[in-house]
Amino acid sequence: MSEQLRRRILDELERLVLIDPHTHIDPQAAASTTLADIMGYHYYTELAHSAGLPREQIEEAGLDPKEKVGRLVEMLGDLDNTIQVSWLVEMCREFFGFEEERITPDNWESLYDSAGHKMAQPDWEQQVLRQSKLEKVFLTNDFDDPLEGFDTSFYIPCLRTDELVFHLTKPEVRRRLENSSRIHVRNAATLREAIAQRFSHFVSRGAKACAISLPPNFEPHDVDATAANSTISAAFSAQWLTSDQATILSRFVFWTLAELCADHHLPFDLMIGVNRSVYRSGVYQGMDLFDKRVSLLQYKELFNSFPQVTFPVSVLAQTSNQELVSYSWIFPNVVTNGHWWYSNVPGSIEADTRSRLEAVPQTKQIGYYSDMYKLEFALPKFRMYRRVLAKVLAGAFVEDRGWSETRAIDLGKQVLRGNVERIFGVS
Amino acid sequence: MSEQLRRRILDELERLVLIDPHTHIDPQAAASTTLADIMGYHYYTELAHSAGLPREQIEEAGLDPKEKVGRLVEMLGDLDNTIQVSWLVEMCREFFGFEEERITPDNWESLYDSAGHKMAQPDWEQQVLRQSKLEKVFLTNDFDDPLEGFDTSFYIPCLRTDELVFHLTKPEVRRRLENSSRIHVRNAATLREAIAQRFSHFVSRGAKACAISLPPNFEPHDVDATAANSTISAAFSAQWLTSDQATILSRFVFWTLAELCADHHLPFDLMIGVNRSVYRSGVYQGMDLFDKRVSLLQYKELFNSFPQVTFPVSVLAQTSNQELVSYSWIFPNVVTNGHWWYSNVPGSIEADTRSRLEAVPQTKQIGYYSDMYKLEFALPKFRMYRRVLAKVLAGAFVEDRGWSETRAIDLGKQVLRGNVERIFGVS
Amino acid sequence: MSEQLRRRILDELERLVLIDPHTHIDPQAAASTTLADIMGYHYYTELAHSAGLPREQIEEAGLDPKEKVGRLVEMLGDLDNTIQVSWLVEMCREFFGFEEERITPDNWESLYDSAGHKMAQPDWEQQVLRQSKLEKVFLTNDFDDPLEGFDTSFYIPCLRTDELVFHLTKPEVRRRLENSSRIHVRNAATLREAIAQRFSHFVSRGAKACAISLPPNFEPHDVDATAANSTISAAFSAQWLTSDQATILSRFVFWTLAELCADHHLPFDLMIGVNRSVYRSGVYQGMDLFDKRVSLLQYKELFNSFPQVTFPVSVLAQTSNQELVSYSWIFPNVVTNGHWWYSNVPGSIEADTRSRLEAVPQTKQIGYYSDMYKLEFALPKFRMYRRVLAKVLAGAFVEDRGWSETRAIDLGKQVLRGNVERIFGVS
Repeated sequence: MSEQLRRRILDELERLVLIDPHTHIDPQAAASTTLADIMGYHYYTELAHSAGLPREQIEEAGLDPKEKVGRLVEMLGDLDNTIQVSWLVEMCREFFGFEEERITPDNWESLYDSAGHKMAQPDWEQQVLRQSKLEKVFLTNDFDDPLEGFDTSFYIPCLRTDELVFHLTKPEVRRRLENSSRIHVRNAATLREAIAQRFSHFVSRGAKACAISLPPNFEPHDVDATAANSTISAAFSAQWLTSDQATILSRFVFWTLAELCADHHLPFDLMIGVNRSVYRSGVYQGMDLFDKRVSLLQYKELFNSFPQVTFPVSVLAQTSNQELVSYSWIFPNVVTNGHWWYSNVPGSIEADTRSRLEAVPQTKQIGYYSDMYKLEFALPKFRMYRRVLAKVLAGAFVEDRGWSETRAIDLGKQVLRGNVERIFGVS
Repeated sequence: MSEQLRRRILDELERLVLIDPHTHIDPQAAASTTLADIMGYHYYTELAHSAGLPREQIEEAGLDPKEKVGRLVEMLGDLDNTIQVSWLVEMCREFFGFEEERITPDNWESLYDSAGHKMAQPDWEQQVLRQSKLEKVFLTNDFDDPLEGFDTSFYIPCLRTDELVFHLTKPEVRRRLENSSRIHVRNAATLREAIAQRFSHFVSRGAKACAISLPPNFEPHDVDATAANSTISAAFSAQWLTSDQATILSRFVFWTLAELCADHHLPFDLMIGVNRSVYRSGVYQGMDLFDKRVSLLQYKELFNSFPQVTFPVSVLAQTSNQELVSYSWIFPNVVTNGHWWYSNVPGSIEADTRSRLEAVPQTKQIGYYSDMYKLEFALPKFRMYRRVLAKVLAGAFVEDRGWSETRAIDLGKQVLRGNVERIFGVS
Repeated sequence: MSEQLRRRILDELERLVLIDPHTHIDPQAAASTTLADIMGYHYYTELAHSAGLPREQIEEAGLDPKEKVGRLVEMLGDLDNTIQVSWLVEMCREFFGFEEERITPDNWESLYDSAGHKMAQPDWEQQVLRQSKLEKVFLTNDFDDPLEGFDTSFYIPCLRTDELVFHLTKPEVRRRLENSSRIHVRNAATLREAIAQRFSHFVSRGAKACAISLPPNFEPHDVDATAANSTISAAFSAQWLTSDQATILSRFVFWTLAELCADHHLPFDLMIGVNRSVYRSGVYQGMDLFDKRVSLLQYKELFNSFPQVTFPVSVLAQTSNQELVSYSWIFPNVVTNGHWWYSNVPGSIEADTRSRLEAVPQTKQIGYYSDMYKLEFALPKFRMYRRVLAKVLAGAFVEDRGWSETRAIDLGKQVLRGNVERIFGVS
């Protein structure tokens, strides 16, 4: 492939100002304050642990941030082939003036200090946003988040619902739901009321999406009202639920969420395929994996029942990508959404991006989201995606199909930015 | 990869006159008469619907063909990234003198009219065949097709058997079987007789294959004769069948088909993996999807029991391709067959073609079939395949393995044409 | 991609002297004596059979080696697209001075004879090892192998345990276990003693790994002691086991192996996903296939329970590669191991190598093993891998990520050689 062609397309994609449609940013502490905020990201702690660093050394109580970074840096030599470490080096080069190829036990301390100075500047958050060309950032908010104290037209709320669907068996979650909604839940009707109250709250504060992550064996269905009622009563009177009852409860809440998304015209982000706590001794957020034996056919009833709800779907297993492409090609309400977690590496992104661009209507593809916890990550993650996107556009469109560069660039811009605006109703 | 090399290989592959081993052509109306015949193909209606055009507008009763095309054209802007729309533009350029990059609301009417003039020429069908370099075209015929009124040495009959295997529970299908075979079915023996009569009819009219599409959960097995008898009696006396009985009936018929393929030396095309009517409100032929949780291991007993039958196998899920490669590498009676439906996009074809060419005997690969409903589609679909094939031959054989161009071209010709002749016994 | 870049990286990788961490070499007859030893490899016999050569002609009793080669050569024209035949031609060119592009019915006899002369030289084994740059070669030894009569510091023993886990229901296997261990097995404790004796024997003779191949439906678990005891008593008193009991027995033995690996600090090679004897009429070793419906989640309990054991994992299905990458990225005790059997073709290796290098710590990847039965195969198989590795390093690291060539070459050397030394404790 022509390097020049690829480069020219990338340069155009790099100009684009972005809306990041899925992150875990805390709007009260969006940017990092030390390198430990960055290197404390689970991608680094879990990889360092995987390469041999004991969890106790990473998660030691009261550990000084600088000492933590020092311990992690010792492992970077084993990890620096990974794309994740390339993000780290790119952040340090772009934001902190770092000029070496690698972060090593010999050079990290001065980097730590210079980074600290930079981050201590009062406008650091704004600097990062400007340099990263970010115009809006979606959040991931607990259902009882008051959504106060930040600009919700910039940091856009998103109602995250894993707890409601899978953890209502926990007393604390039920209590938080009842407290935040001010509804005393006794049955299906009052549970629906409580959740509806949360939707109203979120929408009134500018929420633009509802989101959930789902295990591979979940299969949404509408639930018989009587069964739902008795199960919900049991749950909210703190009775122990059978496995069948727990399924009924999860399905009832999930279906209710879809109904409320329809009522409020909210897209419902489905992040399909994660098994939680597979590696029980893993570091924080470094325990989850997946089972590739999952099919979007499990979502057949949902997609048929809610034609008025848009479902931006992310899949964890790369082997699910072709199903995602095909379901988005057929169902008007299914759209492809980014490259999630274990599929967020260039090799997977390249194959998945190509097959999406070749077969899904161009208006139904959300190219990328950063999934970041700290703002500094948007730049290297989106840049990785832009590089892959430029490569695919240059190879599969300009070279293989004879497209003009302009046309290829326009397609790239649409999946990078235009679709986010339209699908989520932001601009 | 050298563009010149790829181009030279493609030019040689483009010279080849082809036999298309699987289509849905109606031999009495093989070519299109208006652009609506072409744009009415489910690839365009389903994509337009997926991008937002209501089904009612596409399938409105009594809709004028030109009006229908006009409605679909409104959506093309959202779809023109897709490979399917590239086929459309290529057809219009090759057959109708269209010279623009895209079909738009501004230019489609003159295209519609000029295409109409072209298609009205009395030898239009012959023009298309000549320009597309097609020498023979396989059909897909209902089991009760009289196979009359066309040249069966050009339009080669193929006995399609989905209805016999999966829909004998429908009175109309039973009636059609009894009427066409003139056999009154009461039990396993008479059902076999009726189906055998259909095979004799098809073979006497030049049929060269039996074919079926299969859902992901189907697992062929020989069936106990007593169970088969009682089930068949029940079915043909219009009794309601349990789900187990329906399985017995399907397996009995399927196994009988394989036996008759053995008797008549007919290849049995298996198209594995489609779930019908997943999207219930979809447009005509735009409702089917798949579940990737299927394995060729389900066909173990079949492949072992019928060593004398050749099974050209198509898989719907790209994740099934490696199983297909491996089963074809081991079983003498399994051969790879084309790139089907959701896997018929360049990204999948490229990966699948490479792995087949690297590991399956070259005599056991049917490169491509068009699956077309109208003749005009063979040209762009086969050209897409030829481009990908040239790319794979140039990259994985000439560049990676040091092959001569001539040798690579010969391999390409064998999978494009030679194998079709030998495997189906046509030439 | 720049051909020169790829070539320079390959040249550096070609200089490396290797340790082959998994083979089926018989150390008493490591090299071939005729071309029939090479062409008798199941890759050739099964492909020739798949292309049409009857098994009876390949496995005829008392068949002269030269006649056997002659029969196989007749089929090579149908197979010479395959990567396996490219290994054959490469061996003939490198070792036997063969200068043609293909082995044909016209030129094979002189090749057969000249190869025979070469292999008859007294130092043939040493010649092959030197030319192939092999420094050590791992074996695959039956549990009752005396491990005598060869240099175990060069031919390194590996305890293969399929028979213990899956075939203790066979009287002959039980007898061999009791005889070799000199332990009379009556219950769980004595079965463990017998197996432990075998571990001690192997470790005392320099074994560096325990290994097993596993069917797709196997799921290791710790077993209740009472159930294990009664099942083992039943098995060793030659009672017929139910399917549930057979599972208990397999799980007990497997778990015991893992415990003994922990005791002896032996890596436990898991080769996951093979179904044995799928094609019942296949040639010797050409009957096995797979079912892609398998997940590493089935190994969750094992990986959690044995943090002190390193599990080099090979997967048979390419669709399992992303799980392997992800589990290796998270679990400290899981490492990627080579490219096995049906995934050992360039297309799969290229995609799998890229995704491993992009996301798994570089210290946790065993690049390749030959799996060979005869020494001559290491050269072409490792060369195939080195070519693919050079291509991935040139494309995904130097070109896509801007790495220096030196850095890319160092990464290649680590996965080709360095990790083998460290993970298995050999150097």
